[in-house]
Amino acid sequence: MGPSAGRIGTAKGLPVLVPAMKQAIVARTDIGMGQGKLAAQVAHASLSAYEKADSQLQRQWKQGGQKKVVLQGESERQLHELSEIADRDGIPNAIIRDAGHTQLEPGTVTALAVGPAADDRVDSVTGELSLF
Amino acid sequence: MGPSAGRIGTAKGLPVLVPAMKQAIVARTDIGMGQGKLAAQVAHASLSAYEKADSQLQRQWKQGGQKKVVLQGESERQLHELSEIADRDGIPNAIIRDAGHTQLEPGTVTALAVGPAADDRVDSVTGELSLF
Repeated sequence: MGPSAGRIGTAKGLPVLVPAMKQAIVARTDIGMGQGKLAAQVAHASLSAYEKADSQLQRQWKQGGQKKVVLQGESERQLHELSEIADRDGIPNAIIRDAGHTQLEPGTVTALAVGPAADDRVDSVTGELSLF
Repeated sequence: MGPSAGRIGTAKGLPVLVPAMKQAIVARTDIGMGQGKLAAQVAHASLSAYEKADSQLQRQWKQGGQKKVVLQGESERQLHELSEIADRDGIPNAIIRDAGHTQLEPGTVTALAVGPAADDRVDSVTGELSLF
């Protein structure tokens, strides 16, 4: 079974195919975040986009193990462009700005989370990017 | 204003002191996670503990900017011990096991999130650990 094949769920007692779901978090590689800072920003983005998803998407994603991939972004501009594509496709997404208490200037854009949504919908936005 | 001083909020029109809140995520340093894997596991732990918190804690934490710190853990045993302390103190927490599709053996414990809760309550569990 491929990564997008989905799982068999049930609705009203009938088996239905639940699409494989994921969330992609794009973090900037051009601002020199340390490992801990990176992880905190990715977590912040993940939760923020999750909260924008409707409850059915949230539930399906969690039932499938809340799959996440962390990807390399190259610039603030790229994150905004990807966010606009996700908006246009109706995919929940969130751009994070760091509060700037440490390491970064206040307001620095650090990460974008796309999804949870069906694998192929997320891939249509972030499929070109490399794993972090 | 110190990190635990809190903020002034309002309840029924009266000003009240909202305690400063945070979440600490302890990630293992002894299993050689790459940066992207580390970030994904931290995000997984963060969301899982968040969902165990009651809605008031969730709201207060988000209103304060959902502050997170990522800390260094040295072993699976340490994460379980810290989780037990948090349980005893009634602090929401979640231990994460990796599905093991990449890098790690399936079921490897990777991270523990403690909170959201008031700063001093979280510190009573994880205050001895170093920043990641």
